[in-house]
Amino acid sequence: MNPGDRVRVERADETYEGVLLPSTTAANLVVKLDGGYNVGIDRGDATVDVLESGVYDIEDTESDDSSVVEFDPDLPTISLISTGGTIASTVDYRTGAVTAQFDAKDVLRAVPDLAGRANYRGRVVANILSENMTPDVWQKLAHAVYEEIENGADGVVVMHGTDTMQFSASALSFMLDTPVPIVFTGSQRSADRPSSDNVMNAVCSVEAAKADCAEVLVCMHGSESDDVCSLHRGTRVRKNHTSRRDAFETIGAKPLGEVDYSTDDVTVRFRRDYDERGAQQLALDDDIESEVELIKFTPGMTVDSLDYAEGKAGLVLEGTGLGHVHSEWVDRIGELVDDGTTVVMTSQCIGGRVCDRVYDTGRDLLDAGIVEGEDMLPGTAKVKLMWALANSDTPEKTMRTPIAGEITERSVPWE
Amino acid sequence: MNPGDRVRVERADETYEGVLLPSTTAANLVVKLDGGYNVGIDRGDATVDVLESGVYDIEDTESDDSSVVEFDPDLPTISLISTGGTIASTVDYRTGAVTAQFDAKDVLRAVPDLAGRANYRGRVVANILSENMTPDVWQKLAHAVYEEIENGADGVVVMHGTDTMQFSASALSFMLDTPVPIVFTGSQRSADRPSSDNVMNAVCSVEAAKADCAEVLVCMHGSESDDVCSLHRGTRVRKNHTSRRDAFETIGAKPLGEVDYSTDDVTVRFRRDYDERGAQQLALDDDIESEVELIKFTPGMTVDSLDYAEGKAGLVLEGTGLGHVHSEWVDRIGELVDDGTTVVMTSQCIGGRVCDRVYDTGRDLLDAGIVEGEDMLPGTAKVKLMWALANSDTPEKTMRTPIAGEITERSVPWE
Repeated sequence: MNPGDRVRVERADETYEGVLLPSTTAANLVVKLDGGYNVGIDRGDATVDVLESGVYDIEDTESDDSSVVEFDPDLPTISLISTGGTIASTVDYRTGAVTAQFDAKDVLRAVPDLAGRANYRGRVVANILSENMTPDVWQKLAHAVYEEIENGADGVVVMHGTDTMQFSASALSFMLDTPVPIVFTGSQRSADRPSSDNVMNAVCSVEAAKADCAEVLVCMHGSESDDVCSLHRGTRVRKNHTSRRDAFETIGAKPLGEVDYSTDDVTVRFRRDYDERGAQQLALDDDIESEVELIKFTPGMTVDSLDYAEGKAGLVLEGTGLGHVHSEWVDRIGELVDDGTTVVMTSQCIGGRVCDRVYDTGRDLLDAGIVEGEDMLPGTAKVKLMWALANSDTPEKTMRTPIAGEITERSVPWE
Repeated sequence: MNPGDRVRVERADETYEGVLLPSTTAANLVVKLDGGYNVGIDRGDATVDVLESGVYDIEDTESDDSSVVEFDPDLPTISLISTGGTIASTVDYRTGAVTAQFDAKDVLRAVPDLAGRANYRGRVVANILSENMTPDVWQKLAHAVYEEIENGADGVVVMHGTDTMQFSASALSFMLDTPVPIVFTGSQRSADRPSSDNVMNAVCSVEAAKADCAEVLVCMHGSESDDVCSLHRGTRVRKNHTSRRDAFETIGAKPLGEVDYSTDDVTVRFRRDYDERGAQQLALDDDIESEVELIKFTPGMTVDSLDYAEGKAGLVLEGTGLGHVHSEWVDRIGELVDDGTTVVMTSQCIGGRVCDRVYDTGRDLLDAGIVEGEDMLPGTAKVKLMWALANSDTPEKTMRTPIAGEITERSVPWE
């Protein structure tokens, strides 16, 4: 056992894994954990396993010793995962990180207000603008989150560009069963602007990730002031404004919860029931069918706009009102269904439920074989259809069954 | 001059045109106006021109004499134009009207609460479900509204299905310069349901059509109660819920005005400036370019989804956030622009302004030749592009210039 070895140390109920550092006292072992923390362990009753010998260059590891962050065993461990976007740039640009990992030191250098709230570890899954997000990055992200939880993270914060955050949050909602919170956050204004929301959103997300709601959430400003962040279910949230800091809204109800940032104690509270921490076993179903399209119907569109969906596995339509398209589309939709495309109807109204039983067009669409998308947001329905076609033997039934809060019985106001 | 002749009667400042009826006193002429009213005119100083002789069957005209509606020269004349939809079915179904005209009697039989508020005349432009609305029906509708105003209507109420009302209202906003109000209304719940909104919406629309705001407005329930209708600019309104009676909302601001239905006096009030009655000369520019598409970008969409837009005159993109699509789309968009397609960027956020100068993708899109759609709603931008390509020599400049309230300087809250 020498400095530079990768070791696992067990003592009482605690297990530490990392790189053994030179110790200044014989009574202590000092281990550099993967999150970047140095932890001192009483040598007394400790058992040490050497996992790998002498593979670390201790000179390098110790070079920045002055800024070592102390691991606090009384605090939960939060894993920060970066996918790119404005908030991640706070971390990435300042550290120049293009590597797959960043550590607690990097996190606290970027957002000092995070100190004392948790022990941190971090990893970079992607470094892309969120308009460039693709289903295969959703899979990488889901896999990374799964690993972090498997490796003991008490909560996960995903830093994501705001443009497509709702799609990625929906994807993880369907792909993962999680025993801990998975909290997406981002920033509408970059860190170099006085009005930046990045610090408050980061702090509130960490507090939400420490809380009891083991669901996939989006944590963003809940007002134009710096007083509260809203916690939205990943499948029910929508970016409803291009630039406001409180652009994200839960559709059809108040947000599931909020993080009060207006007092010294940052407190998390919830308005409705949620899946509690530990209630679900960790599980990952990350298969995805990428041949799914979303087409929005608008007046003047001719039926040949559906040609693009020919041969695809799935199609989500954004119809008008209760779920309508021009009557001339009905036969063509029937042909797509007969050819094996699962066609799901949603509404461009955004709020409310589709109901194709009221008017003739709707009944004809049902006869043609469309699946009613209930009150799912069109974007969420697209993600769910991609997931259902790859993971369910009965995707049509799955589409009509609530999986992750994406279908609500009715709008539930706060009081 | 005989009963059954079509006549024009001029007396003092008044002109009446219609069918001469048998009169019971020698001192009076009785003329059946086109709106269905019988008006008695003092024969004294009247000048009568016979326009057409003996072409009307007086027996028929008089058969329902008991229900004749008296023309009230002290009230304004409101023209009701039906295009179909739930509210129009109130009139159409009860009268069985499939003809191109209906009269005051039909209106008052369908909605008795309209009595005493105006003199009415009516015409049917279409009888279609609003998901079947097409640009050529917009043209017919604009032409009919133009004729009604030219023929002296003091205001126009357009009865329209709610699904695509915002598109038709936008179309008329661009096609018409109007000296009188043009008020779209509809019904979210049919007349046979206790919760029907058809009577209140009809009454409030007529009152709005009598008011001073000579713009194209949408008048629909402003709350879930029967207390107030909101008046929305046709270019800024959106159906935001599939079934609620107060589904229509102005985006980015409070509604322009409202009609208070909670007291006996139904009163109209406005929150902001508007074009006043008589300020504009009546004009019609109803050319339309139908080869314009709207494509909504969502993650997972590949660039070949743009193939459908090849060779089209115009394309509106619903991008993410400030107006983004996957970077891989930029070159293909540039090719479309080079081939002569006008490409306009809007945001699926719905609220807020696109701004393609902040991030790389946006700047690349500008270099590729897209036109920023400012804060236009995507649907409104599509209608405007159809109109601009047919009526403007500089459609790109027109797209960035406010024409009918579709572009706002910034969101303007009430107070």
